[in-house]
Amino acid sequence: MTADKCKVLLIGSGGVGTIASYSLEYEDKAVVTSVLRSDYAIVKEKGFTIDSIDYGHIECYRPTNIVNSVESAKEYGPFDYIVVVTKSLPDITNMVDVIAPAVTSETAIVLIQNGIHIEEAYMERFPKNTVLSGVSMIGSSNKNGCINHETTDFLRVGVFPNENVPKDKQDSICQKFVQIYNTGKNECVFDENVEFSRWRKLVYNATLNPVCALTQLDVGRLEIFGAVDSIIRRAMKEVIAIAASDGVQLPESVIEFMIRSDDPVYYKPSMLIDYEKGNYMEVEVILGNPIKIAQKNSVDAPILTLIYHFLSVLQCKIKEEKGALIVPKERPVAAK
Amino acid sequence: MTADKCKVLLIGSGGVGTIASYSLEYEDKAVVTSVLRSDYAIVKEKGFTIDSIDYGHIECYRPTNIVNSVESAKEYGPFDYIVVVTKSLPDITNMVDVIAPAVTSETAIVLIQNGIHIEEAYMERFPKNTVLSGVSMIGSSNKNGCINHETTDFLRVGVFPNENVPKDKQDSICQKFVQIYNTGKNECVFDENVEFSRWRKLVYNATLNPVCALTQLDVGRLEIFGAVDSIIRRAMKEVIAIAASDGVQLPESVIEFMIRSDDPVYYKPSMLIDYEKGNYMEVEVILGNPIKIAQKNSVDAPILTLIYHFLSVLQCKIKEEKGALIVPKERPVAAK
Repeated sequence: MTADKCKVLLIGSGGVGTIASYSLEYEDKAVVTSVLRSDYAIVKEKGFTIDSIDYGHIECYRPTNIVNSVESAKEYGPFDYIVVVTKSLPDITNMVDVIAPAVTSETAIVLIQNGIHIEEAYMERFPKNTVLSGVSMIGSSNKNGCINHETTDFLRVGVFPNENVPKDKQDSICQKFVQIYNTGKNECVFDENVEFSRWRKLVYNATLNPVCALTQLDVGRLEIFGAVDSIIRRAMKEVIAIAASDGVQLPESVIEFMIRSDDPVYYKPSMLIDYEKGNYMEVEVILGNPIKIAQKNSVDAPILTLIYHFLSVLQCKIKEEKGALIVPKERPVAAK
Repeated sequence: MTADKCKVLLIGSGGVGTIASYSLEYEDKAVVTSVLRSDYAIVKEKGFTIDSIDYGHIECYRPTNIVNSVESAKEYGPFDYIVVVTKSLPDITNMVDVIAPAVTSETAIVLIQNGIHIEEAYMERFPKNTVLSGVSMIGSSNKNGCINHETTDFLRVGVFPNENVPKDKQDSICQKFVQIYNTGKNECVFDENVEFSRWRKLVYNATLNPVCALTQLDVGRLEIFGAVDSIIRRAMKEVIAIAASDGVQLPESVIEFMIRSDDPVYYKPSMLIDYEKGNYMEVEVILGNPIKIAQKNSVDAPILTLIYHFLSVLQCKIKEEKGALIVPKERPVAAK
């Protein structure tokens, strides 16, 4: 009977999102409606092909419902959870607007996304809904509907506290999601301290990610070429200081942990791969928001600030490549 | 009679150096011995082909003597001037060692090169010789012996003051070089204040040059994408502050002058072109030396410092591409 099952709307069925979708449906505890864009036709026809370290080889995985817009997903609702697994690009796409048509008073929104303070726009727009944080540790990529899932799915899910919703209710909505997501093959845990998890991950994401993108070097070369000493450790200290000003005490040991976390691989972080492919980068949620917090709390962060300015320029470059920003044929000059 | 003519040894016959060589020989006032490396065979055979805004089209220009090493140049000496027109790359090539075999007690060394404090290594090694500064404003490039000279040759030549040589003697050696270099087609002036000229040029070279290289964007796009406001002006202010600590007062107006100096062209500075071609960049003399001066004089320069660290990483990347730096097959990991 589907009546007992949770109804999940999933936005963003890439490498991470498709494994999330598969996990949610694995033990028949949820019905997933997946909104697909570029892969819609191919998945409708052939389903996803998955090679997964957790689940093995799977041919023709189709989420229960496949749609190409949130509007057309509504017939499969109302949804208990809307799970957003896209890149977090508020400067490019207003995801709050995108999901709005499918949000009911009982819908919980699950943001399996990078960055800090990403929940604010959702909580402002849907003040009485529960918003959950998903911090994912997974290696998984999607190429035209073929999912290559290389490192095991470890997901921390917690509550972005909302004073308009009883804490018990938020916690139980979160616990239920954790219970559904867990398949025995993956690991999904209740995250008691969402902000801690997010700031901790940012120690890597706000430093190694953008510096690798900017220099177009993997983490190993960055270290051999001296930038871990000259740039990365200092930038990581700035992240820790900003986190502290935001109420999150990270131990100093997280710096060495993150620097060594890719050993012994010459690892290319996702932002570098995005830049190489000409895809948008999560500049605002990974760097812009921390910088804003630093400014608000008068924390000195010269290195992160400059890295942010550099990445903002690269984002414009990608916009130009995509035709989303038109550079005039003649260079505009200042009035004399 | 060649007896009355100045003897010049020229190192670095690229776009700038070949025009310098041609200018010095133009009115038969000097005999140039040119040390060629990669273009030696082609120039020996066919000479340089020059398209020059100052001199027109010239087929088969051969400096009087063409050699492939400083050692083999010695038979054409002793030299009145050794003119160094290579890129200034002390981290790659020790040019002091390169020219040493041809330096006599009466040789003046002319550095037509970018950067600050570039004379120190020469004055340390040749403490009793006159060292001259050449600050060139020219657009000229070399491709396999074909010189494309697009903007007129304007050269400021001055004295790097040397307390071991009478000031009159240094000045007259400099004035004589200016007189030889001037052809009526170009403009070569005596530079009364070498340090001012060099720091002034650095306002552009230490900021727009490396930031364009790092972002792989021309100056026009950098401005449209916001980086002139977010990065360049602030970095230029740091250059001005470091210059002041080094005894050179630059007017604030130089900032807008430099930002507008490429109007209305989407101009790619030389460092960007070097990076695109996989050539070494003048990181140390353009950024490293100013940073050292900032540190010595306790001037805060966080933006230039970070740009320097980024460019140092890119220089390593070029070294790896050229095989001058070997990255181990396995990423080295820290001992546990």
